[in-house]
Amino acid sequence: DEVPRPARLGLCASCHGEDGRSTQSGTPHLAGQDLEYLKTALAAYRSGQRDVAVMRAAVGALTPSELDALAAWYAARPPRP
Amino acid sequence: DEVPRPARLGLCASCHGEDGRSTQSGTPHLAGQDLEYLKTALAAYRSGQRDVAVMRAAVGALTPSELDALAAWYAARPPRP
Repeated sequence: DEVPRPARLGLCASCHGEDGRSTQSGTPHLAGQDLEYLKTALAAYRSGQRDVAVMRAAVGALTPSELDALAAWYAARPPRP
Repeated sequence: DEVPRPARLGLCASCHGEDGRSTQSGTPHLAGQDLEYLKTALAAYRSGQRDVAVMRAAVGALTPSELDALAAWYAARPPRP
C-alpha cells in the first residue's frame, strides 16, 4: 500500500470507517472517491462553505498536510466490491 | 436491476457518468454512495447551502421525485471494483 496510514485516521474513522465505508446512514462512503473532490470538500468544511458542525470540528483540528494525507488515504481505498 | 433508470439521468451523466464513475478530476464518484447522504447533498445544492453553480443549475431543473430517483439510481450502482 503506497499511501501511508495517516496518524489522524481515527478522527475520521469513527464515522467514515478506516476503509472509507461508512456504517451510518447519511454519512458518505469515502473509499475510492476522487482525490481533488475530497480536498475541495474538506476545504469547504473548513471554511464553513459547507456548514456541518461535526466536520468543521474535525477538520479544524487538522493541518493542511494532515488533511491531504487523509484525502489521499481514502481516495486510495478500494470501494466495496 | 430493481432501480429504474431515471428519465433525467443524462443531466447528471455528463459529469458523473451513467454508472456514477466520474471521468473528471474534482467531480465525485456517486456509484454506491450512501442514499441519505446523496439526498442531503442534493438538498444542499438546491438550497444553496452548497454554493456550486453547476449543481444549483442542474438540481434546480428537477422535481423532488426526480431527485430521489437519481439518488436511488446512483446509490444502487456498483462502485468500480
